[in-house]
Amino acid sequence: MTVPSAARILERCDALARCSEQPDGLTRVYLSPQQRAASTLVLQWMTEAGMNARLDAVGNVVGRYEGERAGLPCLLLGSHLDTVRDAGKYDGMLGVVTAIECVAALHEQRRRLPFAIDVIGFADEEGVRFNVTLLGSRAVAGSFDRTYLERTDRDGLAMRDAMRGFGLDPDSIDNAARRRAELLAYAELHIEQGPVLEQEGLPVGVVTAINGGNRLAIELTGMAGHAGTVPMHLRRDALTAAAECVLAVERIASGDRDLVGTVGKIEAAPGAINVIPGRVRFSVDVRAPTDVLRERALAAIRSAIADIAGRRKVALDIQPVWDAKTTPCAPWLQEQIAAAVAGEAVAPRRLPSGAGHDGMAISAITDIGMLFVRCRGGISHNPAEAISEEDAGVAARVFLRFIENFRPQR
Amino acid sequence: MTVPSAARILERCDALARCSEQPDGLTRVYLSPQQRAASTLVLQWMTEAGMNARLDAVGNVVGRYEGERAGLPCLLLGSHLDTVRDAGKYDGMLGVVTAIECVAALHEQRRRLPFAIDVIGFADEEGVRFNVTLLGSRAVAGSFDRTYLERTDRDGLAMRDAMRGFGLDPDSIDNAARRRAELLAYAELHIEQGPVLEQEGLPVGVVTAINGGNRLAIELTGMAGHAGTVPMHLRRDALTAAAECVLAVERIASGDRDLVGTVGKIEAAPGAINVIPGRVRFSVDVRAPTDVLRERALAAIRSAIADIAGRRKVALDIQPVWDAKTTPCAPWLQEQIAAAVAGEAVAPRRLPSGAGHDGMAISAITDIGMLFVRCRGGISHNPAEAISEEDAGVAARVFLRFIENFRPQR
Repeated sequence: MTVPSAARILERCDALARCSEQPDGLTRVYLSPQQRAASTLVLQWMTEAGMNARLDAVGNVVGRYEGERAGLPCLLLGSHLDTVRDAGKYDGMLGVVTAIECVAALHEQRRRLPFAIDVIGFADEEGVRFNVTLLGSRAVAGSFDRTYLERTDRDGLAMRDAMRGFGLDPDSIDNAARRRAELLAYAELHIEQGPVLEQEGLPVGVVTAINGGNRLAIELTGMAGHAGTVPMHLRRDALTAAAECVLAVERIASGDRDLVGTVGKIEAAPGAINVIPGRVRFSVDVRAPTDVLRERALAAIRSAIADIAGRRKVALDIQPVWDAKTTPCAPWLQEQIAAAVAGEAVAPRRLPSGAGHDGMAISAITDIGMLFVRCRGGISHNPAEAISEEDAGVAARVFLRFIENFRPQR
Repeated sequence: MTVPSAARILERCDALARCSEQPDGLTRVYLSPQQRAASTLVLQWMTEAGMNARLDAVGNVVGRYEGERAGLPCLLLGSHLDTVRDAGKYDGMLGVVTAIECVAALHEQRRRLPFAIDVIGFADEEGVRFNVTLLGSRAVAGSFDRTYLERTDRDGLAMRDAMRGFGLDPDSIDNAARRRAELLAYAELHIEQGPVLEQEGLPVGVVTAINGGNRLAIELTGMAGHAGTVPMHLRRDALTAAAECVLAVERIASGDRDLVGTVGKIEAAPGAINVIPGRVRFSVDVRAPTDVLRERALAAIRSAIADIAGRRKVALDIQPVWDAKTTPCAPWLQEQIAAAVAGEAVAPRRLPSGAGHDGMAISAITDIGMLFVRCRGGISHNPAEAISEEDAGVAARVFLRFIENFRPQR
């Protein structure tokens, strides 16, 4: 077995990171000159790895490594090539580069598998430029909403016109869609973007699901008053009520290892040191790897907040602002990924993904699986994003082992 | 006994309220044309009530009603004539107008007491214009700091120059100071600015102390992180820590009827719906009618917050930003005021003042006492500030009874 090169994987992540809007950091958005530069590199690496490589109708880079004969259904591998603003070098890119490295290893052995491999570098997952995520994978899944074409970037340029400027035909986006029959499964390698693997001393982990989530905007209205003159028992303090709610969210979310709940925003009005807060607005974000768990937690949070508001005689308004179902990773793919992890003498830790990924869109047309790679401090969406070369090597070997041993579902 | 006129008291508060920067509300700051207009009215009312009236060196209006013979030590009565921005009509003014009304009642009977009465309308208590409070009473107490003269208003005009423009000599401010031997006591009638008397169905109350207070600026620093990817047990969430602190302040402040504690300001950073707050800043305001009670509460709050921060592994910074000792009302004056309250068939409820008053400065040169008047909803520093004519009448009769029966301390 040819071992994929961890050094080359990191070099290529560095090379992609140089395709950036700013010289001293990394920002690469959809349909930008930087995307063209990155795509050119990836097309070249794919070709060197023995793939036929092209841009698809939405701008994704797609390389094909045929199986034992041409035209077989494929195992689709990939991740995204766009970034957030002031990004790290691994979120997305590591998955594309490692998939190419695995194909390169097969190609070097002149090895063909009983299925094709398609490696895809999605052109837009983060949604920075047009404020809608998963554009590349939605196009592949056939769920690209044509109204997106009218969205404009911060300079007022419509996506439709930006596509034309990039050399793409916005009226042909449907051509990027893949048929279910062409695909055996989708597998993505990605940094964890969280601290679990680091805490547990594991280089990789098997993703169980891309968490669903709910976000609520909550407003509590009590009675403002003079901080010096209103006795405690006559107060209807919106902030002490909100404080109880914050702790209730934490308590309920702590009731299951895979559940998370966060109050990230809070504003107290009038917001003066000597005035009892009369109104507080705060956010709640709840995520869980199963819809049952999430909906149970959400109901418990809503009920706890209503109880607190009732007991403290503050008015309550709850507005749902976001609601996404869980995308489970297929159990049969989790099994095969876990077997590959164990094959590299790593305990196969299963964990959910708290962040969103292209698999959320791709799951509409084929089963999905994901392999997480430990990242330093759990930090992501930040220039400090980092992985070790050793982990990159373990992850690549696991991913190659998974590919080599891949058996399509019955 | 001639009964003071509640109707005239309210009419005069209305007349003073028309001396305002804006036609549709009330703002009257130190050394303004509106102050001159208000002072002119008050000087006239004082004269009509048989007093010799003048402006003192800092701009206070002072009226003297001699006792059984000229030059006797005086009972000093009063309150302030300046307002906050967009103020109510009674905070300060009610005390000045009612004191004049009481003297008018004595004057109508040609009654002289075995002591003089000085009524004072302080020119600045709220400190709106130059951002330093109690200017009028500090000058009377001899504690006016001459560096205040260099302070500028929002137009950049120094107090020194504003005084000259008003016709006062800033180098003669010391002339406003009163000697301890001239004074028997200071008594002030003021609206409560809180809801206690209204809740208890009482028109007036006897103030036990002007609460001392402490303000703290607190910063908790945990670790920001992705709301979706960091498990609950690995978080160091600065906002859940702050929520516990908010509830600790409430719990500790609820431990004594006269203690209050408030978190009025809170800011969570970075403040995004999907990011765990890494840093939270909040304020704590604690007030109590005795320094022992306040300092015990403050120590308990500091200790509780340190425990919370330690347990949750968030860094803690506590900065004291304000510290004022309690100004007790003299027990012998409380007794005489309570006797006057009882004399009007009202139960003498004793309560502390959560807000600051001129007595804080005057207490340096003589004993102080205060009578609170019920105000609607406990609302103050607001155009909605309101009292009933009936309460104004009860309060004036109580105040006159107190004056008539006043016996200087041994």
